[in-house]
Amino acid sequence: MVQQMVLNSVLSLEHTPEVIEKVGTPLTVRPDIRVVDCTIRDGGLVNNFGFTDEFVAAVYRALGEAGVDYMEIGYKASKKIFAPDKFGKWKFSEESEIRRVLENAGVGPKISVMADAERTDYATDIPKKSESMVDMIRVATYVTQIPTALDMIKDAHDKGYETCVNLMAASTVHEHDLDTALEILAGSEADVIYLVDSYGSFYSETTRQLVQQYMAHARRGGKALGIHAHNNQQLAFANTLEAMILGTSYLDTTLFGMGRGAGNCNTELLLGFLRNPRYHVRPLIDAIDRHVLPLRQQHHWGFDLPYMLTGQWNMHPKPAIKFYSQPGKTYTEFYDTLMDEE
Amino acid sequence: MVQQMVLNSVLSLEHTPEVIEKVGTPLTVRPDIRVVDCTIRDGGLVNNFGFTDEFVAAVYRALGEAGVDYMEIGYKASKKIFAPDKFGKWKFSEESEIRRVLENAGVGPKISVMADAERTDYATDIPKKSESMVDMIRVATYVTQIPTALDMIKDAHDKGYETCVNLMAASTVHEHDLDTALEILAGSEADVIYLVDSYGSFYSETTRQLVQQYMAHARRGGKALGIHAHNNQQLAFANTLEAMILGTSYLDTTLFGMGRGAGNCNTELLLGFLRNPRYHVRPLIDAIDRHVLPLRQQHHWGFDLPYMLTGQWNMHPKPAIKFYSQPGKTYTEFYDTLMDEE
Repeated sequence: MVQQMVLNSVLSLEHTPEVIEKVGTPLTVRPDIRVVDCTIRDGGLVNNFGFTDEFVAAVYRALGEAGVDYMEIGYKASKKIFAPDKFGKWKFSEESEIRRVLENAGVGPKISVMADAERTDYATDIPKKSESMVDMIRVATYVTQIPTALDMIKDAHDKGYETCVNLMAASTVHEHDLDTALEILAGSEADVIYLVDSYGSFYSETTRQLVQQYMAHARRGGKALGIHAHNNQQLAFANTLEAMILGTSYLDTTLFGMGRGAGNCNTELLLGFLRNPRYHVRPLIDAIDRHVLPLRQQHHWGFDLPYMLTGQWNMHPKPAIKFYSQPGKTYTEFYDTLMDEE
Repeated sequence: MVQQMVLNSVLSLEHTPEVIEKVGTPLTVRPDIRVVDCTIRDGGLVNNFGFTDEFVAAVYRALGEAGVDYMEIGYKASKKIFAPDKFGKWKFSEESEIRRVLENAGVGPKISVMADAERTDYATDIPKKSESMVDMIRVATYVTQIPTALDMIKDAHDKGYETCVNLMAASTVHEHDLDTALEILAGSEADVIYLVDSYGSFYSETTRQLVQQYMAHARRGGKALGIHAHNNQQLAFANTLEAMILGTSYLDTTLFGMGRGAGNCNTELLLGFLRNPRYHVRPLIDAIDRHVLPLRQQHHWGFDLPYMLTGQWNMHPKPAIKFYSQPGKTYTEFYDTLMDEE
């Protein structure tokens, strides 16, 4: 009887038929897919970019062997804003350093760097593509910084680079403003527009809705879509797949999920799903064994309850990151602090 | 130019409009939802059911305060098959023990127990409902054991219990056989039919397809659906949500994901999503702090690469569980062993 009540309550609920437009099938090779491994760039936020040259070269080789399409090697941060002696070199990703570390490292993926709007001396610090090992410039921007971002995209494009624009913290932007922003970006020189779940707050339905909104603008502008997910709610991989199924081409990942806070979609998880024979998981597992696990002993990243809470509440992960510098503090005390601050 | 190639390849791929039937909306309270916390039962597979009475009583209280609907307290295993001195008491879940531990533990959720087909002396070991603190009997069965399962379901139903049937390892059953099995189960006395991702191999598309298949039978038989997911690919929560959105009512979880191998959908993740004001996350976080974290120091569970690999390959997690008893073995060595055994 209990059961019949349950069933009746389901039957009486609204059933909404929704049409979703899938690209490809679970057994289709999607020639548009590009896997962008951000281990050094997003992972650098965990260890202040303190990677050894050996680490970076090994990751480069492993990604190459695995068939990964791009490796994001770091930021192009302004040395007028960030003191060089306070960060590892991949905060700045100088051309000479990239060349020195990778030139003899074997065959690797294409290289991308991230350039933050208002934090990059792009006019001077980004050389022409013909003088660079970098293939792609990814401009990261908050919605309010779009005028600067547009100039940066044009600069990179005119210098000969592939270009992406990563619109950050989309979960905090009102739908109407987002439409305006996307319309502007669809008219820019960017090749790819990225949906970014900065706070790890998206559910599959959020992802679906946003991908459809982004896709409408991207198609009109002749752009591809990308997704950069965070794992605050153990949904980074799921949201990446959801976006991909709906036509997103550029998929951001990191080895062992290494990235700020709850980290990212694991490269090895995604490659295990993709049916393209050019991808191979074993080189990644080997690189994790040799190079990433030792780092994991020293630094914290990956799903945990404080990140879950900031994700559920659509907040920046900063308070959760701080939690790990407060030994003895319990999850419950963290919850209570967060509740107080709301 | 690179970019235009990418876009063209998306545009040339098959776009398949798919109609999915959603139940409710992200902001709807679904009165049919039942959260079934399996920390003691599935978690017991991690520590051989060696929970202290204090632990079980504390989880019971916390689930009650959190508004969780059911607590699965253990198995009803046959003492003729399993030696009582080799397992903790929740392998057997004797009525007298349940009563002793919970009777003065405060207000808690309903109680369920799991009865494995061919491993339970159900006729003798399960008392009448009127003599029991247990509310729901969940019969776990492989497709080949369905004749036994049917007798167990009838036995439990006739004794006055709510009844579920958990059809295990659905990912290894051919679609036609699954249809036959579901048709039989839809005609049984079971109130709920469970979709079980034993190997953690489902993607959202697998879940969607299977829920639709299960739902067709369940509706015809007047049954509700349930889902029990595993986290081998970090998709336990995502698959639980996917199933829920498509109308599944009974959702299995565990505290901190505690469960065999990669573990389960975290109760605290799911409650953070559900919009029903009767659910509260804080009591769960407090119980994790006080009771689950100390266990986590002694036992391994949760997402890790060996479980990822068995999930990706749709295999039982046994070899991955064995990995943790082989100190010094690398992920790569595990990968190679698995590859050899295929």
